[in-house]
Amino acid sequence: MFLGLDVLSSQLSSWKDKALFTPGPLTTSRTVKQAMLRDLGSRDTEFINIVNDVRRRLVALGGSSDDYTAILMQGSGTFGIEATLSSVIPSDGKLLILINGAYGKRLLKIANIHQIPTTELTFAENIHPEIDLLERALHSDPDITHVAVIHCETTTGIINPIEAYGKIVKEHGCIYIVDAMSSFGAYPVDLKACGIDFLISSSNKNIEGVPGFSFVLANRESLNAAKGLARTLSLDLFAQWEGLEGDGQFRFTPPTHSILAFHQALIELEQEGGVLARGARYKKNYEITVAMMQKMGFKTYLKPEDQGYIITSFYYPDHPNFNFQQFYEHLSDKGYVIYPGKLTHADCFRIGHIGRLDFADVKALLSAIAKTLFEMGIQISENQEE
Amino acid sequence: MFLGLDVLSSQLSSWKDKALFTPGPLTTSRTVKQAMLRDLGSRDTEFINIVNDVRRRLVALGGSSDDYTAILMQGSGTFGIEATLSSVIPSDGKLLILINGAYGKRLLKIANIHQIPTTELTFAENIHPEIDLLERALHSDPDITHVAVIHCETTTGIINPIEAYGKIVKEHGCIYIVDAMSSFGAYPVDLKACGIDFLISSSNKNIEGVPGFSFVLANRESLNAAKGLARTLSLDLFAQWEGLEGDGQFRFTPPTHSILAFHQALIELEQEGGVLARGARYKKNYEITVAMMQKMGFKTYLKPEDQGYIITSFYYPDHPNFNFQQFYEHLSDKGYVIYPGKLTHADCFRIGHIGRLDFADVKALLSAIAKTLFEMGIQISENQEE
Repeated sequence: MFLGLDVLSSQLSSWKDKALFTPGPLTTSRTVKQAMLRDLGSRDTEFINIVNDVRRRLVALGGSSDDYTAILMQGSGTFGIEATLSSVIPSDGKLLILINGAYGKRLLKIANIHQIPTTELTFAENIHPEIDLLERALHSDPDITHVAVIHCETTTGIINPIEAYGKIVKEHGCIYIVDAMSSFGAYPVDLKACGIDFLISSSNKNIEGVPGFSFVLANRESLNAAKGLARTLSLDLFAQWEGLEGDGQFRFTPPTHSILAFHQALIELEQEGGVLARGARYKKNYEITVAMMQKMGFKTYLKPEDQGYIITSFYYPDHPNFNFQQFYEHLSDKGYVIYPGKLTHADCFRIGHIGRLDFADVKALLSAIAKTLFEMGIQISENQEE
Repeated sequence: MFLGLDVLSSQLSSWKDKALFTPGPLTTSRTVKQAMLRDLGSRDTEFINIVNDVRRRLVALGGSSDDYTAILMQGSGTFGIEATLSSVIPSDGKLLILINGAYGKRLLKIANIHQIPTTELTFAENIHPEIDLLERALHSDPDITHVAVIHCETTTGIINPIEAYGKIVKEHGCIYIVDAMSSFGAYPVDLKACGIDFLISSSNKNIEGVPGFSFVLANRESLNAAKGLARTLSLDLFAQWEGLEGDGQFRFTPPTHSILAFHQALIELEQEGGVLARGARYKKNYEITVAMMQKMGFKTYLKPEDQGYIITSFYYPDHPNFNFQQFYEHLSDKGYVIYPGKLTHADCFRIGHIGRLDFADVKALLSAIAKTLFEMGIQISENQEE
């Protein structure tokens, strides 16, 4: 009896949680969270089997090629990125980074800290890194051994054409690193077709797990070439892989509960119909959001053809009463969490379309936005031009 | 109705989990795990307040001095250790490491990877690093700026006298780093009285949270001196602190669910009566374990006066039928997980005394051990001499 009430009360508290229209941590399913109601030993066979199944499913999501393997790494997505850059580029290598947003800049920051020889091509935040310029850079600088790019730049929501870049990168015999943090699991990615050597994403994005670790899908040959190159102990990608391949264990205590949740999330991704079905749900969330936001007078930062269905940047409305912090708090009080902007040159906020949210949640958010505009005394002209 | 069954079924599965007599991940309370049944935004005020309360409670556990602050760092305990060593020792510094087990050796490994000038004093695994030798080393090598030691060497379960070392370290004006991974929360530590500048522990040890992050208790002045010294981005201790002190946010996505569990675990630690009461429960677990194991003929690796109540190493019994893997699996099948040994020169296994386990659990484990010995046809002579 006591137990029943206890469980009920923790359920009630989870019902009250705000809907997260952010790039993560996301709203996850109740069953994903319930998978964490266990304590498994990290060396126990049951846990090791779960880790193996997680790794198998991740490779399958990347196109099921035997050339690839999956490595889990404790910490957030940035830990996975730093693990990759600091583990796979030799001291006599040279990295080219394509930058069109804050996450591209973060790659550069990591490379600089590890004193990795690096060159970058920086573009405006509302355009794709240009393929011609990539080609020219690789042609004119034969020292470049590695190329890194962001798939979905969460700064804006733009989707960069990773398959087209991959073709050029491979023509020049370079190792290709893709930060697919916000895209993997919602956009189909065929690792082999894209020529990707290392793809990095995280547990709390489109696979709809909870935060706690990142994962790297790696070409086995390129990974083997990284043996002994790591600049840290914790973030040594090759050693982490060796451990997982050897006795199936992490080198250092894994986030067992997050991994149990992620395993359940992978099963639920399959049940939903895989990456295409999940992408379709997110796309619908995106389309409704943009259509209704535009109806209210909001303008998107990106052109529709560049915009992905992960997250959308909207300009602040041109109205004296608009104040983002107030707008955010009004929405939060109503149970809806949106996301601030991260742009260099424009005042925007962001609305995410990912996580365990559907049509009804999106409609509820948009009603809350309409109500909030009314409360703040903001009416945006429908005919306002950019 | 569906929901009720669903919840019941996840509860049932948690009831079946094995009891973890390990150094972590540990058996945690049901309510600690239930605290994870929520999705909070990492920038949301509610979450930021929880992080602040966690940090406040950690400083209180270390003696409540205003000179100290707490930093949470994604990843396992080793990530916290590497964050500290790679963030607080300048390139012209020199680290002395006191080693009497595998975790001391790990400190050395980390220092070497980061090319930190290091010297070590290595001792047998069954004795404490000698204070006289520490004093002599500091006296004869004035280049030494930092000293690091393990509090509870989980390799054996030995407790090193960190307060006595601290006195010498401070007399020589060095920075004092203590890896208190397995001890903090079960042994009282007064940071100021011990002269500790940086103490590192993790979420899934004696505070009885789930794995996902480590934490560092840092002397503010020593931490301020570490600005700009970090050798990585993710593991930059000073920058992580600056973020938490600034807007209360993590620089990179935090393990929100693990932190919710940890917050609940800190509340339950207080409810139990704090560090002394928890230590007393563990000590009782330890005493029953050792007494009953000795009655069955097992011998402990350490002398009682050196042995802590966190984890105990037992020699393999001298019997032809004993095989650790079989012994482990028999116990695991009965619902009890013990831990393999990690000693260089002796065949031992380990039994942990920490986590949400009490007298009844320990008695059940020991019955299972007696039954397993019978099944394996092992009778250990009670009069067997070491």
